Amino acid sequence: MALDTLPARVRVHEVGPRDGLQNESALVPVEVKAELVRRLVAAGLDTVEVTSFVHPRWVPQLADAAELFPLVRELPARLPVLVPNERGLDRALELGAREVAVFASVTESFARANLNRTVEESLAMFAPVVERATAAGVPVRGYLSMCFGDPWEGRVPVARVVEVAGRLAELGCGELSLGDTIGVATPGQVVEVLAALDAAGLTADRLAVHFHDTYGQALANTLTALQHGVTTVDASAGGLGGCPFARSATGNLATEDLLWMLDGLGVETGVDLDALAATSRWLAERLGRPSPSRTVTALAPPSPEENPSPEET
Amino acid sequence: MALDTLPARVRVHEVGPRDGLQNESALVPVEVKAELVRRLVAAGLDTVEVTSFVHPRWVPQLADAAELFPLVRELPARLPVLVPNERGLDRALELGAREVAVFASVTESFARANLNRTVEESLAMFAPVVERATAAGVPVRGYLSMCFGDPWEGRVPVARVVEVAGRLAELGCGELSLGDTIGVATPGQVVEVLAALDAAGLTADRLAVHFHDTYGQALANTLTALQHGVTTVDASAGGLGGCPFARSATGNLATEDLLWMLDGLGVETGVDLDALAATSRWLAERLGRPSPSRTVTALAPPSPEENPSPEET
Repeated sequence: MALDTLPARVRVHEVGPRDGLQNESALVPVEVKAELVRRLVAAGLDTVEVTSFVHPRWVPQLADAAELFPLVRELPARLPVLVPNERGLDRALELGAREVAVFASVTESFARANLNRTVEESLAMFAPVVERATAAGVPVRGYLSMCFGDPWEGRVPVARVVEVAGRLAELGCGELSLGDTIGVATPGQVVEVLAALDAAGLTADRLAVHFHDTYGQALANTLTALQHGVTTVDASAGGLGGCPFARSATGNLATEDLLWMLDGLGVETGVDLDALAATSRWLAERLGRPSPSRTVTALAPPSPEENPSPEET
Repeated sequence: MALDTLPARVRVHEVGPRDGLQNESALVPVEVKAELVRRLVAAGLDTVEVTSFVHPRWVPQLADAAELFPLVRELPARLPVLVPNERGLDRALELGAREVAVFASVTESFARANLNRTVEESLAMFAPVVERATAAGVPVRGYLSMCFGDPWEGRVPVARVVEVAGRLAELGCGELSLGDTIGVATPGQVVEVLAALDAAGLTADRLAVHFHDTYGQALANTLTALQHGVTTVDASAGGLGGCPFARSATGNLATEDLLWMLDGLGVETGVDLDALAATSRWLAERLGRPSPSRTVTALAPPSPEENPSPEET
C-alpha cells in the first residue's frame, strides 16, 4: 500500500507572515504581524518564517522587518528570516536572527524578473551571504523557485533544478526548499525531481517542498512528496500569499488544508488545527477578505441560513 | 515509485448538471442546462449525468427533468439520470434514459435526513428499481453517500460501507460510486475502504470515487484511489454543487482541477481542458458567481492590474 511509506512526523515550515503577507495589497500594522507570529507559535508551529530583510522599495509590505523582528525574536520557535543579500544579512544578524534563507531562481527568466540578475549572478550574490551566515553559526535555507514550471519558459528541465540545488548546497545551504512558484506541478513531476535530486546526492531528508494551490494541485503534490521521503512542508496559514512577480501565482498551500490531511493520516505535526484556523479567521477579518483555505471556511461556525435542518428542505 | 501504479486512462463521470445544479440557489433555465450538457459532451466527456427524476418538491432546481432530458438524449455520450424510486424510473424510461442511478446512504442519520427512511427501507425501495431497470437492459449505478464521515455520526465504520456496497451489488447495481458527501476523508481512509471492498469481492474496476473539496482533500484522495486501481472518477465542471442536506457539504471536486492533474500525469481522459474551463466560465456568468475551481480561475485571461510586469513592481 502506497500510504505505508508516509513519515510518522512532518515539520510544517509556516511561511504566512513572510510569503503570505508580502503579497497582500493591504499594509498590515506591525503589531498585527507580531500578534500573528505569536498566535502561530502558540498554535504549535515550531518554525515560522517571520519576514524578509529585502529593500522596502521592492516589497513595501515587509518594510517594517527591523521593527517586527525584535517584537517576536524571543518566542520559543525557529524564526527564520529571508535575506536577499549581504546588506539584508547584516540587518538580520544585528537584530539577532538565528536562521536565514536565500531565495534563488531555477530559471533565467524569473531570476531576471525577480532579482534582475542571471542565475549565475544571483548565486554569486548569495555566496558571501551563505558563507558569512554559516561562519556566524546561522543555518541558511535555500529556496529554489520555479522548480516545475515557469510562466515564460514553460516546463522546467529537471537537470536545471538539480544544477541549482547542487550549487546552493555547495555554497553551504542546509535545507533546500523546492518551490512550485506558479502552482503548475503535478505529482509525476514531484517524483521525477525528487528522484533526480536523490541520484545527485541531495536526499529527501534535507529537502522541503513548497507548493502553491493555483491549480488546486498543492495537497496532492505534497502527499506525493511525503510518500517519497520528504518530511518538511512549507505552508501558509489560511492560504495567504503567493508571488507578486509571476503570472497567476496566487495561493500558497493553506496550512489548515495540510493539517486536515496530516491529522487524518495520523502524521504528527504538533500543531493545533482549531487554534490555527481561529488565527486565520482573525487575520482575515483584519485583511478584510475571507481566507482562501477550504478547511478554514469549512470549520467556521455555520450560520442557520446556510444549514437548513432536514425538516426545512 | 508509487506513481507507477496509475492507470493509463481514467473515465470522468461528470456530475455538474445534476449534482452541481441541484445545489445552486438560482433556478437555471432549461435551455441553459441543455446547452451546458451539449458543451460538456463537445468538450469530450463521455459520461454526463444529466438530471434527477426526483419529486420537484424535494429538489426544485431539477423540476424540469422531463423537459430537459429529451433536449439532450440524442447526444453521443452516456447520459445517466438519477432515479429516487419506481415512479422516477418510470419517467426516466418513458423518456428514453439508457442508464440510471440510485442514491443510497451508508449511515442511518443521512438516510433519515435525505430519504426519510432507514438504510434498510431505502434499500427495499431501490430493489424493484434496480430489478426493473436491469430487466429493461438499463444499467444502474449505485451511489453510496457518507462513506467516510457523517455530520451526525462522525467517522463511518468501514464495515458499514462494505455492507451497503454489498447489498447494492446484490440488488444488481453495476458501478458503485463511493461518496465523501461532506468532504472530510483523507487518503488513508481511501486506502482502507478500497482494501475492505476488495476483500469482499468488490474490486476497484467496478468502483468510482466521488470526493467533495470541502476541506481541500478531494484531489489528494482521488490520486490515492487511482494508485489503488480505481479508474472512474466523479467530478463537477467548475466545482459546482455539493449536497444541500448535509452541513458544510459544499464543493464537488472540480473537473478542471482533476484534468490538470491527469493531463500532467499523462493519464488519458479524452477531455479538452480549455473547452471545459470555457464552459465553466460561461456557466458561472449565467449563475452570477465565479467558479470555485482553482484551475478555472487560473486559466482565465488575467487582467493587466492583476499581473504587473516586473518593471512595475
